Amino acid sequence: MSGGGAPAPARFSLNQETVRQWSLPELVAGCTAAGVGAVGLWRDPVRRFGVRETANLVAGAGLRVSTLCRGGFFTASDPAGRALALGENRRAVEEAAELGADTLVLVSGGLPAGDRDLPGARRRIVEILGELAPWAGAHGVRLGIEPLHPMFASDRCVVSTLGQALDIAEQFPADQVGVVADSYHLWWDERLPAELLRAGRGGRIASVQVADWVTPLPEGVLLGRGQLGDGSVDLRAFRELADTAGYHGPVEVELFHPGLWARDGTEVLREVIERYREHVD
Amino acid sequence: MSGGGAPAPARFSLNQETVRQWSLPELVAGCTAAGVGAVGLWRDPVRRFGVRETANLVAGAGLRVSTLCRGGFFTASDPAGRALALGENRRAVEEAAELGADTLVLVSGGLPAGDRDLPGARRRIVEILGELAPWAGAHGVRLGIEPLHPMFASDRCVVSTLGQALDIAEQFPADQVGVVADSYHLWWDERLPAELLRAGRGGRIASVQVADWVTPLPEGVLLGRGQLGDGSVDLRAFRELADTAGYHGPVEVELFHPGLWARDGTEVLREVIERYREHVD
Repeated sequence: MSGGGAPAPARFSLNQETVRQWSLPELVAGCTAAGVGAVGLWRDPVRRFGVRETANLVAGAGLRVSTLCRGGFFTASDPAGRALALGENRRAVEEAAELGADTLVLVSGGLPAGDRDLPGARRRIVEILGELAPWAGAHGVRLGIEPLHPMFASDRCVVSTLGQALDIAEQFPADQVGVVADSYHLWWDERLPAELLRAGRGGRIASVQVADWVTPLPEGVLLGRGQLGDGSVDLRAFRELADTAGYHGPVEVELFHPGLWARDGTEVLREVIERYREHVD
Repeated sequence: MSGGGAPAPARFSLNQETVRQWSLPELVAGCTAAGVGAVGLWRDPVRRFGVRETANLVAGAGLRVSTLCRGGFFTASDPAGRALALGENRRAVEEAAELGADTLVLVSGGLPAGDRDLPGARRRIVEILGELAPWAGAHGVRLGIEPLHPMFASDRCVVSTLGQALDIAEQFPADQVGVVADSYHLWWDERLPAELLRAGRGGRIASVQVADWVTPLPEGVLLGRGQLGDGSVDLRAFRELADTAGYHGPVEVELFHPGLWARDGTEVLREVIERYREHVD
């Protein structure tokens, strides 16, 4: 393991949730010390610290904000739920603009309670984007539809494949709506190479994220993302595929794992960069 | 809840694993008492009871064996592992023939330890089927490739969609290799309607199974299949789609759930039939 002398690879971005034990000042200091050039932020900690304060902090450190996570949760079928979601997402767009984030990540939301109509839920995403996309465009923010693994289809995200995400995104201008390609969610899909090339051709790749797939999955399956290199995903092939598709932006490491959160953040970041060099770069 | 007077619906089949608390004689007696016409069996309990003895028991009760679960686990990359898998699957074919099972269900297997080559693992399935399919044909047994949910891609089954299963099956004669469509594994896939129709056109639907999708998923995610009607799957639409595709065979209820196993088998079967009437039939 390196003593931390060399800066992190140029395209490496650290998603805040990977080191959620860190406060925002700790995150910025830790990234600066490690030579990390970009971070992915989350709305909750940013709002607790203050949006303007966060924007000043990261800009002052010269950090790029690769993503703001996240908007979405669009699938309410009642007018009140829909209005609430639209208002919340408009605020998220404003926050992304204030932070200068490349992309506002959208997780679509799952099925409303007692609802079994997946196509209906998917249609409602398109409807609400019809209102949100121009709002994003007016604020200079790009929305990134993130397909989540099909195991989240009922309770978190009815958009399960990159193909589905593109089918939605392509109904809007490319500078307003793109897609987020995360290896954890997409690695199993044999259509991934073709769909990633399709995304690239259309200028739709808003963000690339990496995490490894490890088993057994924990109860609830949310917090089981593997450290790079610990699992089944050919991460280098994934990143190279994104390169071939014409994506040359930040590659964000987003690991949700209590084992990482229990450790010293500096140590975790050093390990993540090392693994990134070994398995992604 | 019915007192158990009316017989179970004509196409209803009970997979043995749904009531794993039952011995084979209990299963046969319970199904006979409830007017169930078909069962899906598993190799382990069948072999413990004796293949010939099981065949006599179910035939004596006039029960149809809709599936034998399961063969497969084909993805070993070393010659010894491959030979072992082939031998084991040849025995499974012989057992299915002796039981008069409609279909031997195949679960392909996951990635070998340390292997990240999904396309390679998928190619090896085709190779081994090249030897197993004629063996099945000679024994009058049909193989059914079962795609499992993508959350099992690394450790259990690299075939994750009905489309992938068909891409493999269609390389062999339809009377030797078909596909198994289980609502639990496939419900999230927007291509399911088109692929199920494709399967029907080619005469490839070997078996239809149903279980509901409920969250949160338990640790390891294997034993969380929901009772019919408890979850997010539109089971009736799924069964009707299979009908439209030209499938008119047994619809097998396969629930892996410790909550069901802890209860009285007769009571579980009564509830399953009632839910089947309400949500599937």
